[in-house]
Formats: sequence, C-alpha cells, structure tokens
Amino acid sequence: MKTWRVLLLGFGTVGQGVAERLRDGAAELAAVGLDVRVVGVVDPALGSIARAAGLDPGRLLEMMAQEGSLRAYPDTTPVAGGTEAIESIEADIVFEMTPTNLVDGGPGLHHVRSALDAGRHVATTNKGPVALAWAELSELARARGVQLRCEGTVMSGTPLLNVFEGGLVGAGVHSVRGILNGTCNFILSRMEEGLEYDEALAEAQQLGYAETNPSGDVEGWDAAAKVAILGNIVLGGALTLSDVAREGIVGIGKGDVRGAAEQGTRLRLVGSVRTVNGAVVEPKVGVEELPFDDPLAAVRGPGNLLTFDTEALGPVSIAGPGAGRAATGHALIADLLAIHRQVGL
Amino acid sequence: MKTWRVLLLGFGTVGQGVAERLRDGAAELAAVGLDVRVVGVVDPALGSIARAAGLDPGRLLEMMAQEGSLRAYPDTTPVAGGTEAIESIEADIVFEMTPTNLVDGGPGLHHVRSALDAGRHVATTNKGPVALAWAELSELARARGVQLRCEGTVMSGTPLLNVFEGGLVGAGVHSVRGILNGTCNFILSRMEEGLEYDEALAEAQQLGYAETNPSGDVEGWDAAAKVAILGNIVLGGALTLSDVAREGIVGIGKGDVRGAAEQGTRLRLVGSVRTVNGAVVEPKVGVEELPFDDPLAAVRGPGNLLTFDTEALGPVSIAGPGAGRAATGHALIADLLAIHRQVGL
Repeated sequence: MKTWRVLLLGFGTVGQGVAERLRDGAAELAAVGLDVRVVGVVDPALGSIARAAGLDPGRLLEMMAQEGSLRAYPDTTPVAGGTEAIESIEADIVFEMTPTNLVDGGPGLHHVRSALDAGRHVATTNKGPVALAWAELSELARARGVQLRCEGTVMSGTPLLNVFEGGLVGAGVHSVRGILNGTCNFILSRMEEGLEYDEALAEAQQLGYAETNPSGDVEGWDAAAKVAILGNIVLGGALTLSDVAREGIVGIGKGDVRGAAEQGTRLRLVGSVRTVNGAVVEPKVGVEELPFDDPLAAVRGPGNLLTFDTEALGPVSIAGPGAGRAATGHALIADLLAIHRQVGL
Repeated sequence: MKTWRVLLLGFGTVGQGVAERLRDGAAELAAVGLDVRVVGVVDPALGSIARAAGLDPGRLLEMMAQEGSLRAYPDTTPVAGGTEAIESIEADIVFEMTPTNLVDGGPGLHHVRSALDAGRHVATTNKGPVALAWAELSELARARGVQLRCEGTVMSGTPLLNVFEGGLVGAGVHSVRGILNGTCNFILSRMEEGLEYDEALAEAQQLGYAETNPSGDVEGWDAAAKVAILGNIVLGGALTLSDVAREGIVGIGKGDVRGAAEQGTRLRLVGSVRTVNGAVVEPKVGVEELPFDDPLAAVRGPGNLLTFDTEALGPVSIAGPGAGRAATGHALIADLLAIHRQVGL
C-alpha cells in the first residue's frame, strides 16, 4: 500500500466529485494498493485548509452540505492560496481543478507551472494550461521527473487519454475525430426535435449544460481546446488553441437542421485532427452534415463520442459522459492511478 | 530503451499479425522505450526456430509469403516444440497464440502454465486457458512475480481489458454487457436484410468470419468464454466457462427476425455479467430483443461493442473490431507495453 498525499486546488463541482469518488471508491483503490490522503484543499470562496494527517472526504462533503464552507473543519491550518499551498504543503500530487481560462490560462496555468517546478506530479481538469502551454509544461514535467496528466480535460472521466496510452500506442493512430462538446450536441439534438436555437439554448442553460454566458461552448472554444489537447497528447503535436480552425453553432437555424434531415443527414459539431507523414495537421472544429448511420450522428443529447482511426484496428470508438460531478472527479483518480502504476510501485 | 525478448508460440493469422505490427510499428514502440526482439517462433505446421540475436519480423513474413514455411530462415536453431522452446529459449515474455480449445484448454493451457512456472511473462490471445483456468493461472503468475495478460481474447486488439485497468479502476464498474461475437452479429444483420439463416451462415463462411464447423460461434461458446474472461478480469470473479448460461443463434429463423423488426426491435446475441454486493453473478449469453436506439442494436455486421456500467461515469462504451490479423496482433503488443510500463522501467 502506498500513500499518496494530494492537494486539491478548487472545491467546486469537480473537487467535490473527487471527494465523492474518494469516499465511495476507497476500497476499490485500496485493492490496487492505493491509499489517498487529502492533505489540503484550496478554494478562495469556500475556504483553504491544510491538515498533514489528512482530511476526510466524506466530512468535507458534509461540511459543504451543512455549512457551504470548509473553514470550520477542526484541527486544520488555514492557507492563503494556491501558490502558498503548493510551496508549503508536503504533497505528492496536485489536483488542479480551478475553472478553465482559455485567454491566458489564468491561475490554473500558474498553479500547474508552480507545482511541476516544485517537483509535484499534477493531474488537471483545467483545459487552459494544456491547450495553451502544453509544450512548455510537458518539458518542465520531464525536466523535474514528474508527470502532468489531464484525462478530465476531454470527455470528463471517460477513459480516453489513458486508453490511448494503455491500449493504442503501437496501433498507428493517425486521426481523432469526435463530438467533444455536450452542450452543442444537446442544442442540435433539441433543434432536430423542433426547437428554435434560442429555445434549445435556454433549455440547456436551465438544465445546467450551458453557462449564463454560453459563448465558450456555442462558439466552439471548448471543443477547439479539446482538439488541441488531443493533437498534443494522442498525436504528439505541439498545438495551442490558436492553431485550431474554429466554427461554432451560432447562426444555425431550424431551417438548416430541417434541410439536413431532408437530405438524410444530421448536423453535428465535430472536432478533429490528424497526422500526415508524422506531422500533426488540420486541427479544426466545425459543423458537419453526417449521414444517419455515422456513429457521430447517432450521438444524441449531451453525450460525447470519440473515434480513433488506427492502422492496426481501423476505427475504435469510445462513448461516455462529457461532463458531470462524479464523472469528472473520477478523471483525477484515473490520472493518479496511472501515475501510481508508473512511479509508485 | 529496454529490449524485450519474445517467444512466439503459433505463427498463423495472429502470429503473422504480430510480426506485421512489429515491422510497421517499430518506430512508435521505440519512441516509448521498447525494443522488441523475436528470439523464437514455434509452429508445428510452419516450422519452429530459435535465434538469440533475433528474427526479423519482415523477413518472417516474406518467408511465409514466398515459401509458406519458416524452416529455411538462415542462422537459426531448430526447436522441437512449445514446451521445449519455453524451457530452452531465454525469453522475457511468451506470446501464446495457438488455437483456442474450450474443452480442456489444449496445448495453449499447457504452454501458459509452463511459461508462467518458468518465470516468463505471458500475453495470450487464446481464450481456453483464461476461460477455463483463470484462478489457477493468475495465482501462479502472482507466485512467480510475472504477469499474465490477455487483451486479445475479447474484441481482438480493441483496448478493453487495458481500458478497464487504465481508466476504470475506482469508477465502480458493476456490469459489462456487449456484442462479443462478430460472426453471430453478421449472421443476424444479414437475416435482417432478408437472408435465411443458412444463407447468412454460408456467406459468413465464405467471407472467413465463420469456420467450416461453426458451432463454436453459433452455439454461443465463443461469447460465453469471453463473458467468463470479462467476469474474471473486470469484475474480479473466478468464473469458468461452465458457469456461463449459454444460448446461441441456432434455430433463429427469418420469421423471428422479421417479428422483432415489426416490434421496433432487433435480435442480438448479448453477453453479460454483473456484480451484486461484490459477488459476480448471472454470467450469460443469449439472444435479446433490443430497441433500435440501444447502442448494442446499432452494431451491424461483424463489429463488436462492449458497455461498462459504472457508478462514477454511467455507461461507457467501446466499439471496435472483433477479429482481424493486424487487430489481434496488436493485442499482444498492447499487453507487452502494459507489462513494460509496470515492470520494465
């Protein structure tokens, strides 16, 4: 049994999802030799606390449910913020779960850089650092002898980056292509059922699929960040977000959706990137007209699906959730487990 | 770079698929630190040869194409058979690729047992040993400090067992359910298009999907073996083939298929197994009537699809080939890579 001391940066939906998985999945993790000890939680809104002896995941969730804050957790030391926590708390791995900022990476980029520099492994669900600064960060991780993993940045905890690494290296993957944004797919699916764009968007917002400001989703930024991440990790590229040709679903009307249906096709926002002679080319996100029997056309509502095209196996597809508290929380556990298998035995 | 000395037992379709992947994927494997050296090939029909300095995969394939035999490969030592090869050839891992025997495991079971006992890692595509003797063999592997892996026994090289291990441990997988036999699925798909059972079977045989004696597929034995394997590896059971309730597609007529279609359903041969309170229960294979929008109903022709039901992620599905030379050959490379990551660094 190896104890992994984990520092959680962010205790919103994803951080609470991690706590939930640690509470419910402890026995399953112990069975593969993993003892996870949360030694600190940093969240500017909810409280930032450290405890070397460990914070109980179930207790953290109870405090959130009862008090909406972590500040009163007994026997803890208050922490000023993420950077101080990275420097002062003895952790083996940092889970970076602050909100994605695709403009300059925001605090998340600073956290990931500081944590790697301090010799901590990092698992992140934050698309910003990975989509904007992969080349720099992966080089820094290599130089410090630690790992940077990001399963949760694409399709939440659906195994994808780990599938590639665990099962498709050597299979000659030459392209990836998928439905990568559940919000857009939900809106397009509802439009097929007769709603106008504005009605479908309002429903997506009501259900919590879309933000009040939906531009990150509907303008294709989120999917484009994921394409950059896939191009880097699966195909070995050095893409940043600005390399990805990007088109969203804004401006698609009910008439477009109906017209496609009359042609026996469905409109889908598809992200893709491929290699030609070893070079990573044509990273893009755009609306495509797909025949009904295309596996991507069959994805309805907020689901996600990614297809790897490979030399040895032909197409291999993975379908799973694109979001969700426990689903994204699981991503960080999967990353920790992957690191454990490589360095912790 | 670590050199892995590999002994190939069997050089039929799967063995040649391995050679193909080693020839075409060498650069990709070198990039992750893997140098694979084939130190012996044993095939009673095609020749059994050893060469400590390594046999060139491309050359092995050329000899098969030109002479239909490996016996004239220069500078090699002849070997008597699998057991002698396991004992006399210094290999780090044995690829066991002899034909599946679901009655008593046949030579494959003997090979796997001998190789593990001799302290060799084993990767196998042979369902017999894993479906009939998993409890014994996995204990033997543990006792000798080596690994037994079998990605290729289910859905050929489609990442599946490696996905579970690499991405779904800790996610609370509580059931697996899938289309596990491409031959049966091809026959049922063709019957939906109007063929009689006998016509569809004849076509499957003509295309090489079904054997001259098709009972292993159409009576559900093949799918049942895969259910036992999934129950053991994914759910931690100790099943053998005889624990699996088994029904095939023999006796299904065009009328049944048409009747299902009139109800808005499709007939599919489905394999499944699940856990209840930690116990592995209800391993079974049978014909089910599925609504059109069930992901399993959407699988046409010889494709395979498996769904993991999980606590953290809900359903996660993987679709890919169920057979094929390069696809199955890749499975052994994926197993080797998984072992390399755990023990070889």
